[in-house]
This record gives sequence, C-alpha cells and structure tokens, in this order.
Amino acid sequence: MSGNTFGKIFKITTFGESHGPAIGVVIDGVPPDIKISESDIQHELNRRRPGQSDITSQRDERDIAEILSGVFEGKTTGCPIAIVIRNKDHNSNDYTDIKDVFRPGHADHTFFAKYGIRDFKGGGRSSGRETAARVAAGAIAKQILRDQGISIVAYTLSIAGIRANNIDTSVIEKNPVRAPDLEAAKLMVEKINEARKNNDSVGGVIEAIVHGCPPGLGDPVFDKLTARLSYAIMSIGATKGIEFGTGFEATSMLGSEHNDNLYLDGDKIRSTTNHAGGISGGISNGANIVLRVAIKPTSSIAQTQQSVTVSGKNTSLEIKGRHDPCICPRVVCVIEAMIAITLLDSLLLQKTIS
Amino acid sequence: MSGNTFGKIFKITTFGESHGPAIGVVIDGVPPDIKISESDIQHELNRRRPGQSDITSQRDERDIAEILSGVFEGKTTGCPIAIVIRNKDHNSNDYTDIKDVFRPGHADHTFFAKYGIRDFKGGGRSSGRETAARVAAGAIAKQILRDQGISIVAYTLSIAGIRANNIDTSVIEKNPVRAPDLEAAKLMVEKINEARKNNDSVGGVIEAIVHGCPPGLGDPVFDKLTARLSYAIMSIGATKGIEFGTGFEATSMLGSEHNDNLYLDGDKIRSTTNHAGGISGGISNGANIVLRVAIKPTSSIAQTQQSVTVSGKNTSLEIKGRHDPCICPRVVCVIEAMIAITLLDSLLLQKTIS
Amino acid sequence: MSGNTFGKIFKITTFGESHGPAIGVVIDGVPPDIKISESDIQHELNRRRPGQSDITSQRDERDIAEILSGVFEGKTTGCPIAIVIRNKDHNSNDYTDIKDVFRPGHADHTFFAKYGIRDFKGGGRSSGRETAARVAAGAIAKQILRDQGISIVAYTLSIAGIRANNIDTSVIEKNPVRAPDLEAAKLMVEKINEARKNNDSVGGVIEAIVHGCPPGLGDPVFDKLTARLSYAIMSIGATKGIEFGTGFEATSMLGSEHNDNLYLDGDKIRSTTNHAGGISGGISNGANIVLRVAIKPTSSIAQTQQSVTVSGKNTSLEIKGRHDPCICPRVVCVIEAMIAITLLDSLLLQKTIS
Amino acid sequence: MSGNTFGKIFKITTFGESHGPAIGVVIDGVPPDIKISESDIQHELNRRRPGQSDITSQRDERDIAEILSGVFEGKTTGCPIAIVIRNKDHNSNDYTDIKDVFRPGHADHTFFAKYGIRDFKGGGRSSGRETAARVAAGAIAKQILRDQGISIVAYTLSIAGIRANNIDTSVIEKNPVRAPDLEAAKLMVEKINEARKNNDSVGGVIEAIVHGCPPGLGDPVFDKLTARLSYAIMSIGATKGIEFGTGFEATSMLGSEHNDNLYLDGDKIRSTTNHAGGISGGISNGANIVLRVAIKPTSSIAQTQQSVTVSGKNTSLEIKGRHDPCICPRVVCVIEAMIAITLLDSLLLQKTIS
Repeated sequence: MSGNTFGKIFKITTFGESHGPAIGVVIDGVPPDIKISESDIQHELNRRRPGQSDITSQRDERDIAEILSGVFEGKTTGCPIAIVIRNKDHNSNDYTDIKDVFRPGHADHTFFAKYGIRDFKGGGRSSGRETAARVAAGAIAKQILRDQGISIVAYTLSIAGIRANNIDTSVIEKNPVRAPDLEAAKLMVEKINEARKNNDSVGGVIEAIVHGCPPGLGDPVFDKLTARLSYAIMSIGATKGIEFGTGFEATSMLGSEHNDNLYLDGDKIRSTTNHAGGISGGISNGANIVLRVAIKPTSSIAQTQQSVTVSGKNTSLEIKGRHDPCICPRVVCVIEAMIAITLLDSLLLQKTIS
Repeated sequence: MSGNTFGKIFKITTFGESHGPAIGVVIDGVPPDIKISESDIQHELNRRRPGQSDITSQRDERDIAEILSGVFEGKTTGCPIAIVIRNKDHNSNDYTDIKDVFRPGHADHTFFAKYGIRDFKGGGRSSGRETAARVAAGAIAKQILRDQGISIVAYTLSIAGIRANNIDTSVIEKNPVRAPDLEAAKLMVEKINEARKNNDSVGGVIEAIVHGCPPGLGDPVFDKLTARLSYAIMSIGATKGIEFGTGFEATSMLGSEHNDNLYLDGDKIRSTTNHAGGISGGISNGANIVLRVAIKPTSSIAQTQQSVTVSGKNTSLEIKGRHDPCICPRVVCVIEAMIAITLLDSLLLQKTIS
Repeated sequence: MSGNTFGKIFKITTFGESHGPAIGVVIDGVPPDIKISESDIQHELNRRRPGQSDITSQRDERDIAEILSGVFEGKTTGCPIAIVIRNKDHNSNDYTDIKDVFRPGHADHTFFAKYGIRDFKGGGRSSGRETAARVAAGAIAKQILRDQGISIVAYTLSIAGIRANNIDTSVIEKNPVRAPDLEAAKLMVEKINEARKNNDSVGGVIEAIVHGCPPGLGDPVFDKLTARLSYAIMSIGATKGIEFGTGFEATSMLGSEHNDNLYLDGDKIRSTTNHAGGISGGISNGANIVLRVAIKPTSSIAQTQQSVTVSGKNTSLEIKGRHDPCICPRVVCVIEAMIAITLLDSLLLQKTIS
Repeated sequence: MSGNTFGKIFKITTFGESHGPAIGVVIDGVPPDIKISESDIQHELNRRRPGQSDITSQRDERDIAEILSGVFEGKTTGCPIAIVIRNKDHNSNDYTDIKDVFRPGHADHTFFAKYGIRDFKGGGRSSGRETAARVAAGAIAKQILRDQGISIVAYTLSIAGIRANNIDTSVIEKNPVRAPDLEAAKLMVEKINEARKNNDSVGGVIEAIVHGCPPGLGDPVFDKLTARLSYAIMSIGATKGIEFGTGFEATSMLGSEHNDNLYLDGDKIRSTTNHAGGISGGISNGANIVLRVAIKPTSSIAQTQQSVTVSGKNTSLEIKGRHDPCICPRVVCVIEAMIAITLLDSLLLQKTIS
C-alpha cells in the first residue's frame, strides 16, 4: 500500500535510498523456465547510469546488478527474482550544505510533511537513483516480451523546444541526447551545454513506440491500458504530463477526422490512421502504441534560489554537486522499463481470461 | 485484478452494462459515523446524466441511486456501501444496425479481441454509462473531503480550440458547456452546434483545481499523487492525455524559471509560483493541485465511416441514436469524482503512517 | 483493504446487512463465454436458507438472486457479475430488546469497539446472512470448476460429539443435518432437538472433500493452498479451527508413518496414503483434498446470560427470535462455496505461469 | 499475486532459495521514526537457526541480517526496509543423490507440477529456510507492537503426544524444546532422541498467546482476525491445522457452556471465560488471543522410502544430511513472527477507520 510495489501479476517492489548501502528490486510473478541474460540487464543499467557523456552528471555510479534469487542454472524458476545494486560513490559532503534546507523543485519539503523525516542525503528514497531498480526489472520484462515479438523504443523527441524532424530509431544510441534525428540532436546538445554554462537546466519530451503488441491487452474500465501506462510512467520523477496518439491535439480535431477507420488486412483488423495511439477504449488494438511524456527541467541547479529551512526560516541556497543539466537522455530507458513492466503484466493478466 | 476496482483503502468496485438491468458500485473503506446526503449523490448524478441541455445527448436517463447497504440511520457504518442505478431507457433498436459492425473510435473491436464477446448494445461494459457509478461514489468521497476542508472543481477550459480567457468558477454551472467564462462558453456552444449540424463532434480540455489539500499526501515512488491521479483520470473514456501544473509547457522552460521558490507564510511553507501544480516529487505540497485533461471528439458520429464486421468483412456504417456532439460538459463531474476518490484514498492511507 | 473482498483473480466483494434493503456480491475475474445456470445458483441458496427443516431456524428468507450484470444472452462476458438478494423477513421487533445490549458469543461488542457503531438489527454486517452472497458466488465458481472436472462435497461429520461412522455422500441431502451416515444423522437430530428444548445449542465438525483437483495449484510460500483455504474458511462465522488430512492427529505420528510414499500410476504420481490431505508443501498433489472445520455451538440461545450494555452497565438478557440450535447443516454449503472460490482463483492464477 | 507478499499495510515480500546466494525480505508500510534494534532482529534469527542444541539440525547457518534500506540514523524512515541474509553452508553434495527423486512429504513433486522446474538443492524456494526472512520482519513488527503494549509468546505445548501440564512461560527459553514445563520438556527431549536414533521424526502442537491486544482489530467479514491469523500461520511449512480458544473441543460443548458471558471491569468489557480465544466475530475483544497449531513430523527422514523420479520411474530413496528430528522448537519463533506481522498490519489498518 505504501507505493513501493507496481504491477498485479508481474509485480516489482523496489527499495533503497540514494546514499544507503544499496538499492534493489524484488520481481515476483516471473514465468518459469525463461533464459535470463545478465548482460542484458547490465546493458540497460548502463544506459541509465550517470557519467555516460559530458552532458550528463559526472557522478561515477557503475551500477552492478547482483541477482540473489529466482534464477537457477541461468533460467527463471517462477520464484521471485531479487536484484541488488550496491551504492558506491558516496560523496555525502555534497549534501552538508543542504542538510537543513528544502531544495526547491524537489520532494524535500513534501517528504518531510509526509514522514516527519529529513533524509537529506541526495533525496533519499525520492532520488532518481531508485529508477535503476526499475530499469533492472524492466530489462527482464523486455526479454520476455521480445520472445513474444513485442519491442519498445523510446527517444528524446524534443529538448527545450527543439524538436526532432525525423524519426530514425537507428541513430538513437548514436547521440548523447538519444534523439532519433542527428541534426536535431546537435542543436539539443548545444542547448544543454548553454544551460549548463548558465548553471541552469532544460527539459524535453520523450516519445515511446511499442511494436508488436497484440490486440486485447488492457481493460475496459479502471485498468485501461492508457490508464495503467499513465500510472506507470507518471510515477517517474520529473514527469509533468503524458499523452497517447494525437494527445492534446485531439482536442482541436473533429470526430470525423479523429476516428480511425477500420479495414481488414488478411484476417487482421487495421486502421487507416493511428490517432488512437494503438489503444481503443483502453484495450490495445494491434497498431503501434504511441505515447509522449513531458519532462521538466532538472530541479538541481547551481543558481541562488529562495527557500526554507527545516527549522522554519527563510533562506537562500545554491545546490552544489554534479547534476544533469537535462535528464531526458537518461530517462528514456526508465520509460521503456515502465512500459515493459506494464505490458508484460497485462499480457500475463490476459492469460487468466483466455 | 480485472480492473473493476479502484483504490486501496477507499476502494470502489463498479459493475454493470449500459443496457443491462442496472449499473452500480460497491464502496469499501468508508470511515464510519459520517452523515451521508442522498441528495448530494443525486445532484452529482444529475450533472452527469444526458438530456441536461440541447447540446448533450437527448437520451432520457434519470439516474436514481438506491443505497442498498452501509448506511444506518443516515450515517455510514464502516461497512461497504452498495449503490444501484437501474437502467431505464432501453431503445435497443438503435443498436440493431451495428450488431455485427465494430464502430470506429470505440472499444468494439478491442473488447471483442479481449473477451471473444460482442456485447453490441451501447458498448456494454465499455459504455460511458459506467461512469455514473463512479460519480455516485465520488459524491460520497466529496462529502468526506469537504469535512476536511478539501474541495474540487473542474470545468471546460477549451472546446475545439476555443479557450476560456477568464477563470470564474461561479459561472461554471450557469452555462451548458460548464466553462468558467460566459463569453467563451457562447463560442463553444456555437462550435458544438455547428459540429452537430454536420453530424460531427468536437473535443476539448478539462481543467481541475483542488483547494485545501494538505501537504503530505501521495508517495515518493510508484504512488506519486501525480501517478495515481493520472491512473484515475486516464481510466475515463475519451481521455487522450493529462498534465499537471505547467505540464507540456515545462519542457520549453529553464530550471531557473520552473522551480517554485519557497518561503514561509506563518508556519506554512508556500511557493512564489505554482508550476508544480501542487505536487512536488509525487507528494502534495499544500498549494492548489492543478491538472488538465485532453478529451477527444466523441466517437459516435452520424457520418458514413469505413469499418469491419464481426465476421470479418469490410463495410461502411452510419451510427444512429442520440449521441453527445461534445462530451466535455458531462465528463467534468466524472473527473471531479475520480479526483475525489483518489484524494480521499490518499488521505486515509496517510493515517497509517502518522 | 476493509476485508469485504476475497480472491485475487476470481474476486468477490460482498455487501449488505441482515436487516437492510439487500445483500449482494460483485464477482470479478469471471472468464468470458461460460454458460451460467440461474437455477444452480438458486439451488445453492436454497441449501443455505433458513426454514429448510424443523431443526433449522424458522425464519422465512426465500433468497432470490437477481443478476444485474456480467451475463449476456445466458453467458458470462468477462465483466463483473453483480448479484443482489433482497431482504424480506424484517421482524425488527425481535431486536428491540437487545438494542442496547451486547449479545454474548456475538460480534456485538467487538463491532462496537471497531466502528463505534451499534447496528443492533440482527448483527448487521456481522450476521451469517452475509454468507448467502458467498454461496451465490460459489455457485458460479462451482459451475466453472465442474467443467474442469473438479467437484466439492462437504458434510456434517459430527455434531455434539456424535460422529458419522460411514461416509456415504449419496445420503447427505437426504437427512436434515447433512451427515453422510443416516444412522448417525438420527442421533445428531436427537441431540439438536434436545438442545433446542433446553433453549441451548450444539456445534459440530464439517468435513469437505475435493475430487479432481489437478496437481500444481497453490504456492510454495504465503499462498500455500492450505493457507488460502484456511483464510477462506476461517472467515466464515462460528468456525473455531481447521485441519487438513491427518490434521491434529499428525502431531502424535512418526515421520515414517506420516509421509505419503509415492508411486507411478501410468504417468500420474500417486501416494499410497493421503495423510497430506491432497496438498504437499502448499501445492495440490492430485489426490483428494481433505479438510475438517470446527463449528462452535450457535451463540444465540434463549437462556439468561450475563452481559453489558452499550452505555456501560452490567445486565442480563435472553435472546428471543428464531435461531438455529445447530448451524452445521446450513454452513455445509458455505464451506463448499469458499472452497470453490479459492480453488477457481488458484486455477486462474496458475494460468499466468503456464 | 504469486504469493511471496503478505500483509496489506505492513507488507512483507520474501525472496530467496535455500541454496542460492541469499534470502531476504522487503518490508513496506513501516511507520516512520521508530527506533530499530538490530540486535533484536539477530536475537530472533538466532532462535530460529539450526544448530542451537543437539536435538535440532547440526547445519551451521549463522544467519546475519544486513539492513539495506529504510533505516536512517537508527530509525525507520517510512520507506521499505530491505534485509538480506546470505546463505553460507552450501553442502550441495548432500543433494546429489536426490537430484532426480521427489522426496516423500516434501513439495518436490508438487513444485515440479506447478513450475515444471526441479530445484533440487534443499527444496529451493520451498525450503523452511525462507522463514528466516519472516522472522527478521517479525522482529521489527514485534518491536513496534511492544511499544503499543502488545506481546506475543509461543511455546511447544506437546510433542509426540506428550503434553505440557503447566504453562510457565519463564522456562520456555530454558529448555531445548521450548516447552513451558520443564518436566514435560525432559520427556519430549527423550521422545525426540528416540526418534532420531530410529532415523525417524516427530511432530507436536505449538500454542501462542497474545497479551495486550486492544479490542477492535480484525474485520467482520473476510478479514476476520481468526481468518487472517490462520492464513498467516498455515502458510508456514509443516502446519496441519490451527484452532482458536476452545478450538475443536467447542464442537462437543453446549452454547450455554461455550458463550463467554460479559461483565464490566471499570470501563473495560471483560468475559468470565475465554472460550473465544480473544476474538469474537472476527474482531479482537481485548482478552488474550489464544491459538494452537498442529505441526507434522519432519518429512526428511533417513529411512528407506518409496518414491518416484523426475523422469517417471518408481524408486526408493534414503535422505541423507543433517535434518531436525522435530521442527517444533524452531517453528515457535516463526509462528510468533507471523502473528506479529498480522497484528501490526491489523493495527495499522484500524487507523484508517478511526
């Protein structure tokens, strides 16, 4: 109930604080007898970790996943898989200055309001570091989905208003912002560097596409696939909004424009357009699932800001340390992970009614 | 697991199809000894029902809520409250024509893909009629929240691209589109009438504001308040997206602009701006919660559309019957209901840690 | 969370008080396209209702189940099935005398301690009447299990120390105590009548056998089938204990006696004995599931008892009204229902891992 | 859903196999700002571990708990507490002989039927070793309950039919069987030694008493405290039955004998007898909670038994290794742990309605 578990059948429970001994995840409901590649998990963790390029945080967190259970002779057993990632790069001095001050844009004052606790070291449980555990779990979900012909790709669609003009997924991992357009990527990098020089930060939009999702996943009422994906993705820090298919633009369209007309392609039902974004009435329709996520500019900036102390005084602060001027390149794989977890869960749930 | 239940402590389970004997809801986790006003429930149901004005569906559904349990001598007992709303206006002939055809924009083909069943009468379980049950439950949640000083108001911010310029909540119930600006409302009504004349439909944006939410509700990880509200609201039909505070606009802002600086107002922490939309790091911060929801143009239109039959043939169809050319005015109170249910649930959950 | 829902996939939520307008159940997770027999539901409700013979309560509650949703053209749709049973025989005068007094042996004082509410009419939500809703849901579960070759039979093994010597399931419905032995049944009836004449009551042991349960249902850790069945059955009022297979007798046996040795019968693994009661390490092993439940003597007796008033005074009371001198004959089908619900849920859960 | 999580608010998820790298638990829903004693956790783990005396298994498992999260400066933060216990004493050769054989009395063949996997090393996930994780979590629950004046004590009431005549809880930890009667304890030890010499094993009955539980915990319907405690305790391996208060003996009593009459003691409602075992109608009544659990004789015995191989052949086997001839002395603290977890969960749930 305390919100550290996500999913119904394929269910993940994460734990750990940014500056404690370790973070980790217990993954329950994994079907048995599936080959698990540890290098796939490591690959995904590497995509998330800081220090990948000069536009991300320079903290050195080599996240090494240790599998403690649920895998026997290289295959899943059906029992829970626990993965632990040790925390290594504790430079807690970075946090001495802000020990008694709530950082603007962060969960500091709200966490304190909730728990009556000030875990000042790097945000504690509210830190983005928690998402490494999700990425590890997502890596396993991705492997299982891949065997079912389902793949997920996310990329940076825009940063600070600069938008990709082309969607060429082959170049995503070839530029530091993970944009699908190398030209736009250059401009995005410039914007990020400019922000960094000014001790400032920028945000952007991430787009994700799911290929190969069969029709029938999701639910007609509360567990619409749109609803569950929104839940999953909006639980990632720094998200400000989500939209599917035409999204907010749909609000200016006519019904006659927006409805996706249907036709048969062999025995498959297809639509002439994909305004729905692959989900109709909350249930996948077989077309690509398309969604976009708004990411705010990073909250940690080295400028002077006005704030409040734990003991109740107005103050000003400057946040030190090594922070990402733009979190988009790293959040891409977190979004993929949460989509993978949600879809696999829906796929397993669907087995109970068919 | 089948997605007909929402909530953790204050938990609602809805049932019923648009053309079966009844729809209803079981509300569990209601604290005991709270006075329940049946007329408040009826008032909310009346705001949702069709036939309220000439711009909504002319179907005659007088939704009368019957409370079957959980209320004793006018007060809650702590036991589940079951509410049943009988279905009355069965003109099933309206559906004969589409018995074998999947309506574009609807859940027809995806419901069939999921369950192997074609419940052709008015969408069955996928019908928007299900939301009457949510509104009844939300009316109870609202009463309990009101006693805690928490109120929720939603309104039509824009329709077909026409946007309210002023936010005057006192006029919302005084115009048929439930806009907070009577001038804009007139233009919106014109747009809707134009669409109706053309056998077409339009969409819009609903904005909701929560006043009086205390700091500390929500959770730092999966159950961020943003995440749970997104789940709740995106589970309403016709939604295409959701955003909080600055939303998608935040993606073009600098961190130095976006961060809400903090200051003390007596012993309360306030912020100079409310870009966060009342929720920081997934936990309410005491400021107004602000969110916006994209609503697509109604799928049921009386124009000729291309589609596919249950037995697998291409066909064309025209949807008859009495449908809303714009669902925004009626969806306003459904959004309020889902917000109320989510917040009350968060409020009760918070009791377990304090 | 408030404990009115049972199950994970096949999930029932009951509602209603003994003297309110109705009781009922919402059944979620029912697989689609299954033929539902209303007369089967009615048959089970008739087995539970009072007034079946002169040894049960003479209250006239003809429980008529009305299906409100989830069934279309005689078949399940996959959407929740809501069933409502109206309450009819309100003789609330029976309860005037005990309005301010907590009845010994009942939940009256504990319900008050929990909710701060005194719903004095027939026990309110704590009434055994709630089990009619479970029986209705169980009737549906039984139908689905029967199609899978799984059947459940329960019977009165002993009453007031008088134990059946033979287990002949064909005579269970042919005697008023539902014993599997007509000779013993006569003696049991005598004991019950003797208790009734003395304004007293008696208890007994119910045994249940499941035939045809496939191996592999249940779980190795918290959701052992023994654990979930215990949860299900001990949630029925008046239960004092449960045991599986050899049960408490196992505590005096040697391991070499108790272990069921295994052998092959074709490709099926069987055991020479069934001390395990059909469940090994929490998972069904393919043998008959065997369990026994202790039922206490009915709490409502017409003798003078010492008790306490709501306002905090010592008092004495005599309970009037028409009560069962022995609840065993009626609880038989409630136990069957809870077993059916648990097994069907386990069966559907098993689909997610195979 | 896969049954590795227990609880609703105070929720534990265990993981790990007997012969993998580690076992562990994630505890969610722990209230913040509570001092945690690591030595208390260690103390409980020591009570469970093998090798405590010459009547328990001689395996050397020094279970050292490492807390990975959720505790900051010695106090809980409200965030999940993860505890890992490394496995050390891997003598996997012990299992070579039984690699292809299903051990009678164990979950081997049912685990295989469920998952299609043969994790032959020490039972894998089905091993009693998993309960160390529960004991660690229970140690934390006990600390929180103790602050509320609630304490739990369990002891061996009987072994192989030899029953304690006195209940002197001060001697429980002073004899190797954890009996509350030193005289009886001697006889019990003799019985165990006799069984061990014969390569055999014995079972027994554990009784548990809860002191200080306030009235009002539990629920009137599915989540009766009896039901949830049964669920909790029957999920421990080797349990064959459970009973509350008078238990199975109640089935031979008259209602007039069995009902606990009520009286006032100051402003507290008390009962002249405690046949109910502290729980009336599923809700705690303020008296001591009393329950008894049947434990079967240990399944692993060194005698020749008949069984079946994974590949489907009849065979005979002798189980080697160091096994407990009687598990009762070690299961005592597992039962205490599961009671503590259930009660704390009920206590936190109760906060949502008061």
